[in-house]
Amino acid sequence: MVASRTALTVRYAETDAQGIVHHANYLVWFEEGRSDFLRQQEFCYSDLERAGYYVVVAEAEVRYRAPAFYEDRLIVETTLCRLRRKLLEFRYRILGSEDRLLVEGRTLHMVLGRDRRPTSLPQEFINRLQDTLQQGRG
Amino acid sequence: MVASRTALTVRYAETDAQGIVHHANYLVWFEEGRSDFLRQQEFCYSDLERAGYYVVVAEAEVRYRAPAFYEDRLIVETTLCRLRRKLLEFRYRILGSEDRLLVEGRTLHMVLGRDRRPTSLPQEFINRLQDTLQQGRG
Amino acid sequence: MVASRTALTVRYAETDAQGIVHHANYLVWFEEGRSDFLRQQEFCYSDLERAGYYVVVAEAEVRYRAPAFYEDRLIVETTLCRLRRKLLEFRYRILGSEDRLLVEGRTLHMVLGRDRRPTSLPQEFINRLQDTLQQGRG
Amino acid sequence: MVASRTALTVRYAETDAQGIVHHANYLVWFEEGRSDFLRQQEFCYSDLERAGYYVVVAEAEVRYRAPAFYEDRLIVETTLCRLRRKLLEFRYRILGSEDRLLVEGRTLHMVLGRDRRPTSLPQEFINRLQDTLQQGRG
Repeated sequence: MVASRTALTVRYAETDAQGIVHHANYLVWFEEGRSDFLRQQEFCYSDLERAGYYVVVAEAEVRYRAPAFYEDRLIVETTLCRLRRKLLEFRYRILGSEDRLLVEGRTLHMVLGRDRRPTSLPQEFINRLQDTLQQGRG
Repeated sequence: MVASRTALTVRYAETDAQGIVHHANYLVWFEEGRSDFLRQQEFCYSDLERAGYYVVVAEAEVRYRAPAFYEDRLIVETTLCRLRRKLLEFRYRILGSEDRLLVEGRTLHMVLGRDRRPTSLPQEFINRLQDTLQQGRG
Repeated sequence: MVASRTALTVRYAETDAQGIVHHANYLVWFEEGRSDFLRQQEFCYSDLERAGYYVVVAEAEVRYRAPAFYEDRLIVETTLCRLRRKLLEFRYRILGSEDRLLVEGRTLHMVLGRDRRPTSLPQEFINRLQDTLQQGRG
Repeated sequence: MVASRTALTVRYAETDAQGIVHHANYLVWFEEGRSDFLRQQEFCYSDLERAGYYVVVAEAEVRYRAPAFYEDRLIVETTLCRLRRKLLEFRYRILGSEDRLLVEGRTLHMVLGRDRRPTSLPQEFINRLQDTLQQGRG
């Protein structure tokens, strides 16, 4: 399976009064990983929106194993683990120094049209992602 | 079971370019619901931190059923569904107008001491929450 | 001059590793004060956007006098201090317990149309705000 | 004068319902620029905090000239423009493609000790920053 690895450095604004990264930020980083995963397939989510498709989050799950701190350099590892015409599922691992697992999670997405009703992804998009997955498995 | 109901109005900063509330904000609102739940038991999370206990998020799950928009008036309904010496589990429902269910979720929490190692909640805290739960069930 | 007073309680997610409210949140609270000011004039910013007007921030200034902490109950005091066809200026004071001044600031706004070019506010909007100001001064 | 240039890509969570970056995020990016400026002087703000010094924001000013959008690649250009024993002032320019100026601003900072009272920066810190400035001017 193809995985993207997105580097980020923890911002001060992402910490909270416990001195660690506030737990809601991991959803933002998952989203960053997802955006980066698509960009690495030479695909911009912006293009998809311009074409009238919205990929919305239907479910999110996060397991927090160890905290991250200000200025930590992290990796968001993103994989696409399910691809249907009307839904996508991504998995994520947030890694700290020496690739130590800090947080893992998954998000399930539905595809909506301009009218905010469920629709299918454009076939070209599915093909491109499918191809990449198959290359990854081969 | 005792539930707290926390009212909030969606802020502009909580929306994203899809024109709806960004999905990470629901974790912030769950946290608000949790804080409010504890305050309604005449208990401030600040006091617990001052006494050297940190309640950290170990797991979070969110199911998004319908979007919320800028200026929507929402209710965060919070219940404590599990209470052990070293962990707590809360459930949440975010309700829109006419109590329509928009989002639901749960968070699991561990208790850490000043050394960031797992510890037990003070017995007084457990008693107070337990009592409330039992009254609620009675 | 008419001032609105918006109450809020500091959220945990709004704190940072210094143990105080992160300074960027005051811009979000100013925006909340502004939204509330307009709602008190029986005017929703959402309606303005639906009519094709965007009020964008052109300048912001904040002076931080004293920190706020988790669970602090604050007041955002908002006044409209300038109203032209194409611009508005608001002033804000964030007050802590016993109305102690914590933070003050101002924001200057321009009005854009659907094409993101400067335009004038609808006359009806100007009249309503002007009337309120005049009543306030009278 | 020495300037640091920090690259960032706009995150989806940083946009709002106007389809552009929410204006409060620029304060977060200024902070990122500041952290990066210090790191480039081989200096971590984390070290300063561990030594018991807090550099807090006393004033912030932002001028918004043009909006930024999701996935835009931006540069935060940061310069230290004033350095006293008890205060620092930074200036920032946020640049879009072809170094087009989008936003500029400044922040003024005070130095607090563990007791949250004003104090002087450690001399070693001042020397290091002063030296860098002098080299920059030479």
